[in-house]
Amino acid sequence: MATFPFEIFTSDGNARTGVLKTSRGDIRTPAFMPVGTAGTVKGVYMDQVKAAGSDIILGNTYHLMLRPGAERIKKMGGLHEFGRWSGPILTDSGGFQVWSLSKLRKMTEEGVKFQSHIDGSRHMLSPERSIEIQADLLGADISMQLDECTEFPSTFERAEASMELSLRWGRRSLEAFGERNSQAIFAIVQGSTHPELRQRSAEASVNETTAGGYGGFAIGGLAVGEGHQAMCETLDFTVPHLPAHRPRYLMGVGKPIDLVEAVYRGIDMFDCVIPTRSGRHGQVWTDKGPYNIKNARFSEDSTPLDVHIECPASRDYSKAYVHHLVRSGELLGSMLLSWHNIAYFQNLMRRVRKAIQAREFEAFRADFAANYGAA
Amino acid sequence: MATFPFEIFTSDGNARTGVLKTSRGDIRTPAFMPVGTAGTVKGVYMDQVKAAGSDIILGNTYHLMLRPGAERIKKMGGLHEFGRWSGPILTDSGGFQVWSLSKLRKMTEEGVKFQSHIDGSRHMLSPERSIEIQADLLGADISMQLDECTEFPSTFERAEASMELSLRWGRRSLEAFGERNSQAIFAIVQGSTHPELRQRSAEASVNETTAGGYGGFAIGGLAVGEGHQAMCETLDFTVPHLPAHRPRYLMGVGKPIDLVEAVYRGIDMFDCVIPTRSGRHGQVWTDKGPYNIKNARFSEDSTPLDVHIECPASRDYSKAYVHHLVRSGELLGSMLLSWHNIAYFQNLMRRVRKAIQAREFEAFRADFAANYGAA
Repeated sequence: MATFPFEIFTSDGNARTGVLKTSRGDIRTPAFMPVGTAGTVKGVYMDQVKAAGSDIILGNTYHLMLRPGAERIKKMGGLHEFGRWSGPILTDSGGFQVWSLSKLRKMTEEGVKFQSHIDGSRHMLSPERSIEIQADLLGADISMQLDECTEFPSTFERAEASMELSLRWGRRSLEAFGERNSQAIFAIVQGSTHPELRQRSAEASVNETTAGGYGGFAIGGLAVGEGHQAMCETLDFTVPHLPAHRPRYLMGVGKPIDLVEAVYRGIDMFDCVIPTRSGRHGQVWTDKGPYNIKNARFSEDSTPLDVHIECPASRDYSKAYVHHLVRSGELLGSMLLSWHNIAYFQNLMRRVRKAIQAREFEAFRADFAANYGAA
Repeated sequence: MATFPFEIFTSDGNARTGVLKTSRGDIRTPAFMPVGTAGTVKGVYMDQVKAAGSDIILGNTYHLMLRPGAERIKKMGGLHEFGRWSGPILTDSGGFQVWSLSKLRKMTEEGVKFQSHIDGSRHMLSPERSIEIQADLLGADISMQLDECTEFPSTFERAEASMELSLRWGRRSLEAFGERNSQAIFAIVQGSTHPELRQRSAEASVNETTAGGYGGFAIGGLAVGEGHQAMCETLDFTVPHLPAHRPRYLMGVGKPIDLVEAVYRGIDMFDCVIPTRSGRHGQVWTDKGPYNIKNARFSEDSTPLDVHIECPASRDYSKAYVHHLVRSGELLGSMLLSWHNIAYFQNLMRRVRKAIQAREFEAFRADFAANYGAA
């Protein structure tokens, strides 16, 4: 089985904290993975990403295969060397972005043909090609099976057909991945918001034995418009069908409240563009939710963004200065807010892990929910 | 006299190297000042600016008075505190930017009325107001007299009237500045490309005794379209009229070849936006001149930007990666190139100082000129 040792230190209800031990370093779980779409976490230096508490980052197969090209990254020494990140990298399969970004998609059993959103060039993404890109060319520590992201909402019939295609693509992904020593491959559970389909998808993925089976299990097809409540409910009826001893990864999620509620339901890993994307739009994340630094009330506020977070972006600059930078369209405004937001998310994950370790996560979650939304 | 001790270690021909000792730290001369227009050197952290070898930065009075406002910066603790730069800051008088950026200018003996290029609001810049903004509100270590930047080309008569206005504004700037212990004020010599006018402007500025006279002498009205040759000639007939024991500052200059040729003619200080502005457009500065990293020939070039420069941006990233970042419109591309270019300019100034110290500047200049333009 191509996987990594996963040690769970403490469970508290369904929440658990532990460590996933990859050959490029330990990932403390629950873990938040900043997104490095095109080989860079937008606006942030990799040493800042690391120092903020990130153990692993995510790379986007779709973007990287189109530009600069997966073969080129291989030639340049792989994604770690190319983008100057020595820790573990998880890559998505490309399926989600083909679904959300590309033009003129054509789905077949073989895979998906599409046109690049950058230059209109034509490409094919099959399970075999996705794994070749992720595991062989980019050199991801954790590859994801190719899946189809089922659109929301979906009828039972549509979601069932899509989920079954993802299962078949998963088996082919595993076959292509084969046996590897220091790389893992995760399954993606689909089934939209239908409990029976999520159960069937989870069980089939867990029971898959091709090439030793999967090293971890992701839940896909959420954060696509279903809303916080439906996301939580889907986790409630999906997670119980995943094995306790393997990492569970909720893809593309999310806001701090989503993270806390998903950890409460047994999730170990997350990725999301929110910290950097919202940072580029002037948003500052806090336990109370986000606020926009462009608001006039910050124009003469000499306090830092968050004195409790051990990050220069959070501690060393006044709100008035960041307000000025963002209003003036200065790069440094985007840089500082992206950096602060990543540090905030990682600080939150640290507190989450500590609360689980202390078996106080129920109280932590209640406090967090009571406070959230007051920004 | 409101000035700082200026110690010249070595002269080599007209070139000289030394140190200007401000109360916020020493400025090694010849010095290049990165431009922090709006309280930030665009795309670069202040600790990167410092570590690259910058002893002093420049702030723009015009931009800061319009946004966030000089009174507001004063309220936030002054420009050093606001923008997190603890070293010396020189501010320009605002005159040049009013001339190049603002709308609906109206010049009178009193000063210049203009409309903000940002929001159309109406403002007045007089010598007294410029000094109040620079010395009292922003808290600049070195303030510049208010001057009128004479347009190029200018007839003798037009340049003469403009230069004489600048002299009168200079005297009023000095009066407004008064006697200060840890701040200096510099004159700006005008006169376009007319030798007689430059001489008269220089001599009158040098002989000005109001409030103890000027602590340094800038040459303004260059780098406005006259070209490298005319700039050098203007320096040739202007610098001899400036005192040897006071710093000489060539405003808004320039390209590396301009810096070397101006040092050769006795200039001690420079400021220019080139490192950051051209960095944001993909340009990489070298001894051979600039090249654009977007060029296809760098797409698989695994060598760093410049292994000889002690700067992470220059040493730790492949050209192929920076090429990819810039082509992809990633913030990190602008960040790395701006940082590298500042490090390149400061590395050049270090070599310039060393060559003068060794009394080998003539050979350095010849080598540099022979090599330049081959990029």
